Amino acid sequence: MRSWKIGLAIAMLACIAALSLTAQDGASDGPRFVDGTRLARPTNYREWVFVGSSVGLTYLPPGNGTAAPPFANVFVNPSSYRSFMQTGKWPNATMLVLEVRRSSSESELVKGGRFQTDLVALEANVKDSRLPDGWAFYTWGPPSALKDAADPAPPGQAIPGEGTCVDCHINRTAVERTFVQFYPTLLEVARQKGTVKPGF
Amino acid sequence: MRSWKIGLAIAMLACIAALSLTAQDGASDGPRFVDGTRLARPTNYREWVFVGSSVGLTYLPPGNGTAAPPFANVFVNPSSYRSFMQTGKWPNATMLVLEVRRSSSESELVKGGRFQTDLVALEANVKDSRLPDGWAFYTWGPPSALKDAADPAPPGQAIPGEGTCVDCHINRTAVERTFVQFYPTLLEVARQKGTVKPGF
Repeated sequence: MRSWKIGLAIAMLACIAALSLTAQDGASDGPRFVDGTRLARPTNYREWVFVGSSVGLTYLPPGNGTAAPPFANVFVNPSSYRSFMQTGKWPNATMLVLEVRRSSSESELVKGGRFQTDLVALEANVKDSRLPDGWAFYTWGPPSALKDAADPAPPGQAIPGEGTCVDCHINRTAVERTFVQFYPTLLEVARQKGTVKPGF
Repeated sequence: MRSWKIGLAIAMLACIAALSLTAQDGASDGPRFVDGTRLARPTNYREWVFVGSSVGLTYLPPGNGTAAPPFANVFVNPSSYRSFMQTGKWPNATMLVLEVRRSSSESELVKGGRFQTDLVALEANVKDSRLPDGWAFYTWGPPSALKDAADPAPPGQAIPGEGTCVDCHINRTAVERTFVQFYPTLLEVARQKGTVKPGF
């Protein structure tokens, strides 16, 4: 009878280990740093949660290059999304990926409007307690660097903290350093939770 | 020694059962029918895989109402997405959700371009062997019906098979009855797998 219980205990421990490995999918989906300063490019961000898309959005007076305005898609790691939906705030180890794609109307079928085509830029906005400022922006460089098949997840470089994108993300965003005012499903939750900055 | 093995066997069976329940998250994410003919609205489709967004896309000569072109976001159930990435085809029990949202440029910050706001329509394109034609389209009605908090997942009505959307989805689509030509990451896979129709 005693050995029966030992067998059960061993198997239960193995089972708990296997189940926690499965559950980790959600918890370990945040930023991964390389050499402490660079950000590994997630290979599966297209399976993360989509929070919004815009077209031709610019915060500067538009120039003359708006004939083919690009789309910007934003994705967030799933565990941080689920946390935001509960609290209206971003937890530690949150990573939002901004994917910029060319737009096109070139299709025999299409009589108006634009759809998305090639990837032209990939950037990230990260909230992490390991960062000196708590937040940082990263870029994975020009499109040619994004297609390096030999290294599917090259690390991204930090964008200097003095850049206009950082200032704007601090001063003009609806929730923390993120443009939740442009992500309608997140904005609704943030309003319910009272985490939206005054003025939004 | 014999009872030790029996204990181990019982616990292993329990473990397998628990693990398969966990794994089912992916396999049971497809269409769910109500009364055999209506389609339950998925409550979590915003956590499905985003495949593309377009703005103002129309297949008819544009009218005069393009001042605020809507966005159309398309999501697919995760298990079908993963299958497509392996094969370039949609498996049985695939559900693509089309979400139409108003667009806006009304923000003190925004100097050009448009972002997404309120939900205005929700439709689905379903591939399922239980359907007479193998595929069907569903709509969840006007926006007011979508906000029924008392029933978060009201069933959608089938769109009649003779409609122009069905003809167009049969004759003008790149892969099966889906507009993969407008979903760049899927199109790349379909080209690799040789599942794109001639002409695309």
